[in-house]
Amino acid sequence: MVAFRLSSAALAASLAAVVSAQTFQRLGTCPTLGCILPPDAQDFLAGQYFDIRLEIHAPVNGSEATDGVPDEDFSLTVGKVGEEAVPVAEFFDVEEPELETWNFTWYEDLFAEDADTPSLVNVASKAYRRVALFEPGEYEAVLSYNGTNTTAYWTVKELSEVRKTKNVLLYIGDGMTTNMITAARLIAHETKNGRYLSKMAMDKFPVLGHQMTHSIDSYITDSANSATALYSGHKSSVNALGVYADSSEDSFDDPKFESILEMFVRLLGGKVGIVSTAFIADATPGAFTAHTRDRGDYGAVIDSFIHGIVNYTWTEWPGYDVIFGGGAENFCDPEDGGETYQNLNYYNVFSEEGYTLVSNNTELQESSASDRHLGIFSTSNMEKWLDRNVYTDNLVGTENSPDCRGSDGLDQPGLKEMTLKAIDILDTRAKADGDKGWFLMSEAASIDKQMHALDYDRALGELLELDDTIKASLEHLKELGELENTLVVVTADHGHGFDVFGSYDTQYADAQTDDRSKRRAVGIYEQSGESQYTRGGNLRYADSFFPANWDPRYTLAQGFGAHPDVRENYRVHRDGPRSPVTNVTGFDEDDYFVNPEDNPNGFIVNGTLPTDSSSGVHSLTDVPVFAQGPCQELFGGVYDNIDVFYHMAECLGLSRASADGEKEETGKGHGGKGGHGKGKGNDKYKGRPGYKHYGPKQPAYKKSPPK
Amino acid sequence: MVAFRLSSAALAASLAAVVSAQTFQRLGTCPTLGCILPPDAQDFLAGQYFDIRLEIHAPVNGSEATDGVPDEDFSLTVGKVGEEAVPVAEFFDVEEPELETWNFTWYEDLFAEDADTPSLVNVASKAYRRVALFEPGEYEAVLSYNGTNTTAYWTVKELSEVRKTKNVLLYIGDGMTTNMITAARLIAHETKNGRYLSKMAMDKFPVLGHQMTHSIDSYITDSANSATALYSGHKSSVNALGVYADSSEDSFDDPKFESILEMFVRLLGGKVGIVSTAFIADATPGAFTAHTRDRGDYGAVIDSFIHGIVNYTWTEWPGYDVIFGGGAENFCDPEDGGETYQNLNYYNVFSEEGYTLVSNNTELQESSASDRHLGIFSTSNMEKWLDRNVYTDNLVGTENSPDCRGSDGLDQPGLKEMTLKAIDILDTRAKADGDKGWFLMSEAASIDKQMHALDYDRALGELLELDDTIKASLEHLKELGELENTLVVVTADHGHGFDVFGSYDTQYADAQTDDRSKRRAVGIYEQSGESQYTRGGNLRYADSFFPANWDPRYTLAQGFGAHPDVRENYRVHRDGPRSPVTNVTGFDEDDYFVNPEDNPNGFIVNGTLPTDSSSGVHSLTDVPVFAQGPCQELFGGVYDNIDVFYHMAECLGLSRASADGEKEETGKGHGGKGGHGKGKGNDKYKGRPGYKHYGPKQPAYKKSPPK
Repeated sequence: MVAFRLSSAALAASLAAVVSAQTFQRLGTCPTLGCILPPDAQDFLAGQYFDIRLEIHAPVNGSEATDGVPDEDFSLTVGKVGEEAVPVAEFFDVEEPELETWNFTWYEDLFAEDADTPSLVNVASKAYRRVALFEPGEYEAVLSYNGTNTTAYWTVKELSEVRKTKNVLLYIGDGMTTNMITAARLIAHETKNGRYLSKMAMDKFPVLGHQMTHSIDSYITDSANSATALYSGHKSSVNALGVYADSSEDSFDDPKFESILEMFVRLLGGKVGIVSTAFIADATPGAFTAHTRDRGDYGAVIDSFIHGIVNYTWTEWPGYDVIFGGGAENFCDPEDGGETYQNLNYYNVFSEEGYTLVSNNTELQESSASDRHLGIFSTSNMEKWLDRNVYTDNLVGTENSPDCRGSDGLDQPGLKEMTLKAIDILDTRAKADGDKGWFLMSEAASIDKQMHALDYDRALGELLELDDTIKASLEHLKELGELENTLVVVTADHGHGFDVFGSYDTQYADAQTDDRSKRRAVGIYEQSGESQYTRGGNLRYADSFFPANWDPRYTLAQGFGAHPDVRENYRVHRDGPRSPVTNVTGFDEDDYFVNPEDNPNGFIVNGTLPTDSSSGVHSLTDVPVFAQGPCQELFGGVYDNIDVFYHMAECLGLSRASADGEKEETGKGHGGKGGHGKGKGNDKYKGRPGYKHYGPKQPAYKKSPPK
Repeated sequence: MVAFRLSSAALAASLAAVVSAQTFQRLGTCPTLGCILPPDAQDFLAGQYFDIRLEIHAPVNGSEATDGVPDEDFSLTVGKVGEEAVPVAEFFDVEEPELETWNFTWYEDLFAEDADTPSLVNVASKAYRRVALFEPGEYEAVLSYNGTNTTAYWTVKELSEVRKTKNVLLYIGDGMTTNMITAARLIAHETKNGRYLSKMAMDKFPVLGHQMTHSIDSYITDSANSATALYSGHKSSVNALGVYADSSEDSFDDPKFESILEMFVRLLGGKVGIVSTAFIADATPGAFTAHTRDRGDYGAVIDSFIHGIVNYTWTEWPGYDVIFGGGAENFCDPEDGGETYQNLNYYNVFSEEGYTLVSNNTELQESSASDRHLGIFSTSNMEKWLDRNVYTDNLVGTENSPDCRGSDGLDQPGLKEMTLKAIDILDTRAKADGDKGWFLMSEAASIDKQMHALDYDRALGELLELDDTIKASLEHLKELGELENTLVVVTADHGHGFDVFGSYDTQYADAQTDDRSKRRAVGIYEQSGESQYTRGGNLRYADSFFPANWDPRYTLAQGFGAHPDVRENYRVHRDGPRSPVTNVTGFDEDDYFVNPEDNPNGFIVNGTLPTDSSSGVHSLTDVPVFAQGPCQELFGGVYDNIDVFYHMAECLGLSRASADGEKEETGKGHGGKGGHGKGKGNDKYKGRPGYKHYGPKQPAYKKSPPK
């Protein structure tokens, strides 16, 4: 494999830029002043459509200051390594696009942010829309500007085009690590002299792998760019869905690339569905169809579910066959408080296009499996398993009914009910329409969301619900006769630094009056003893594995290295999801302290995060991948998150090493019509602070509305 | 497979006992008052020799009080499930052993410990020594006492007896988790737009698995009982090496079981070696040959390396072919301060039996590969990679020369030098003696030891040294023509709850004067940026991967959920391994506070551990297994730590489903001569507080002597 080469000028600029900017970056994928997106070292699926954007940066001030005038005569050549390079428009047979210009500002470090001394950058840019590479191999894209150049090497992977699986069932445990799976196993499965009498469904998968989650420009990722990587084989920046982040203010004009579902419907015509316990506009369900630099464009995300991308020439999208989740705010009528795209009632938008709407579990169960379905069961994130099944009083007074009119959203389905129904719908519809198979993504979103809230018990309850769902869906696929036809993959998008380190004698702790004495209640090593969650309690589950007891005397001592100020008492929060921090009168609104109403009998642990962090954060670790079914063997070992996409794509036979009649004589590239860009072509270098493209301070955690 | 069955009396007693004792346990494997060791739900290798111990407990006071008189007429029957059960002595054809009696005390919980109100238990016991089961299948052992009974089900696994590998190379990254491997990769391997340009040697292994580390009676483990599980297929209690923990005071009379190395030499006659960066009497190297309930019996551990077990009839042990590590204290002449078995100079003991002694890297390199070798290179644990290679001033003044006479132990080899030489010695000696193969265990011990000290950088340096060693040893095995003949397994024994959660702008942090402001320097999500350890610094390594820069401006924000009071500044400790805590005049000696000399420019994080914990502790998580070579496919997926033993044993063909001439007519069991027990047969129920068998409070972390 060809090594990744940087020109010496780029290397020098790279080192300079990197040393001077780390908390913030001018543009993460662009260490020089000439930027190519897709950048260097990217992989592509043969035949996968994508956009190209070029940017020339001319910093006006700061550590990289130039004369502030970007070279507008920049040009890009593209060619296979070892072959002739030609100008990009010629290579892909597209028209030369218009020049765009804008500016933006950024802070070079925290000192600059404190002093409010931003660096201003003027930009000249062009975007080439909807092109594709077909022939496998290594390509060289060279951007010439200002008498120098930047080179990007692109690798089109050589994969089999033979379809080996009919269906794909992809489970995402959001934020789920091996450490969490171990803890969930401990509280739900009995042991006898150290031997587990039963195991997690995940434990039984034949193939285990690890995926590396590193973002394109940061080593910690969020759910948006990690979903992007898993779904499309292209890494991106935090907060980005299905695009490489550029520096323009418009979040929709960033260069896109097709997702696996877009290719699945385009090439194979199968049925597609998404299920999540989150608000359905959230990143993990959103990333297949939304192409935006900002995951917070919720309205546009919802619109993409039914219409695909409409502002650019892009893959036609027939609309999902199944959408189940929460987030009614993005559907309800604005009169009822809905926050929707173009202020439309999106329930109406979907039903007018023939979707069957369901709003609770009763309707879900009774509904016919032959229709397209939209099921939105709550505002915001759906209720947690622990509250739906154990502390059911917490369901009263939530005011989260999916009509947004303020009644309680009772009778919510869980991940299992939604997923089993979605399988039925997809399978029924596929078989009625040429049996071209289906692809379902099902997300246990609140593992992550409850870990953010440091509500370990609730998060582990969500993980156990995921495992129960996996178990039930494998049995169901077998009943349908589809088990051998389905590649089932269970993975996460990223981790949290969670682990269990002992037990906690809550009775002893509560009898102590000072923090240091309470800590004596932590039992380490042999004093951790055995799990008390599987004994003594009175909860039983017919065919599932959950704790018999969520509130024993001896609980798990658990937590993260990364947290805000908290008070820990290591026991279940009976009154609903945890709120570990609060702001204090007289301090900044986002200056967080221990919430005095949370665990008042606990001991305080000062935080390790910035004090404007109200929650836990994501961590670095590789995350597990469990696979079974056709192509399972591809998923063993250690690899990149983008390789999950390439394995699924290869298994579906989505690789296309030739354009099938279009531009067959070149066989290399192919372009589509340029889109309607939203650049600011007229007002050059408008002297105003522009889009702060590194995003808001707390991008990945959406604080749930108080219950 | 037969389900694990508890009698209803046992179930009731189990629930009662479990509810009333968790921080402490009377005897973890014995929820009733009649105890069988090996206990219920254990697996056995066919033909593996083991001891049986029976104990009848008669609590005198406390929550389980009886009349205090254990039934001395207890009896055990053994039989295959579905076949006739016979008395144990008859089943194994051994003599009935003498009755032993003793007592012990324990605290039922922390309240009782605070009030110093122990519970006293009188015990009657018998031990049947050196028996074996041969026929695969399920066995039932029933202990009758006091008109009731306890049943244990034992499973002899059905494994192939065909040898598939000649050699085994087992690497233990002590305390190493996937999260740590991810962090080590980040600081040593460059990325380009999120893609790693090189990978860890571990990443490249073809097969990945997870092992569950749960102890026999606690969910957190230490290195002793986890090594026991990995090496013998039998789980045990924290602190125990190669035995099930009984309740007698004598740490050597606990019921033993053969380790894989004992069977390897007995059945196959191969060559054996241990390498560790720890003091060589430590648990991970010790657990193959020492059979003691107390890992702290260092002298006896060292003696077992050369003589095996001498106080009981047991597997003959020819002595290791190679021993490399630290811990000169357990070898030196007592006149020089050695703390040795029976006060002998153990350098002399080894050299008198023909071992070649080496004491530094120069001697190691020059030494002939044909001799048996003892190489002890330092007192205590060996120097860390970071100090040997980067902060070399720290090697001066250590006074750790292996002659114990107080000079500095300079010229210490690293894990790589020791392991490569060990391979040469084992392979040379094997080929000179019938080429029956070899088994080497090599341990990167200070991953764990430095994580205990919260010295994250040093620990990651040790992990990178392990990876460099793996890389070099695979190349070396190839040069020797032994790569295809060697099963190579890389795993851990247990974890620590470590992860990376962002970056840290040390320059910004140092310019702040209060803790909350310093925390602003933590960069989360996209503000983590890229690894600065692989750029800008001036360190280069010819053919290895280590950080170019250990001290960049932007460091890793990292840590655990479990820690004592600490002050964090997230940067490398240039002056040697970290000492995060100290005791304070006027407080108890083991009441720990932040060490004011550690990270004075950091911010304080109150601890989550008992205040007498001076270090981090082990965590729950499953740990990774990487395998390549013959039988590699056995190591994929999720399984128990004991299964690592069964996979290696099967690959070596150590299973023996018949006794080969001995007692062939029964073909089921076989017993050896009973050993010389060290019970207290004469003084019944001596009324004194006895052995607190749950061990000392900080069992697994040996605080290194101050440097």
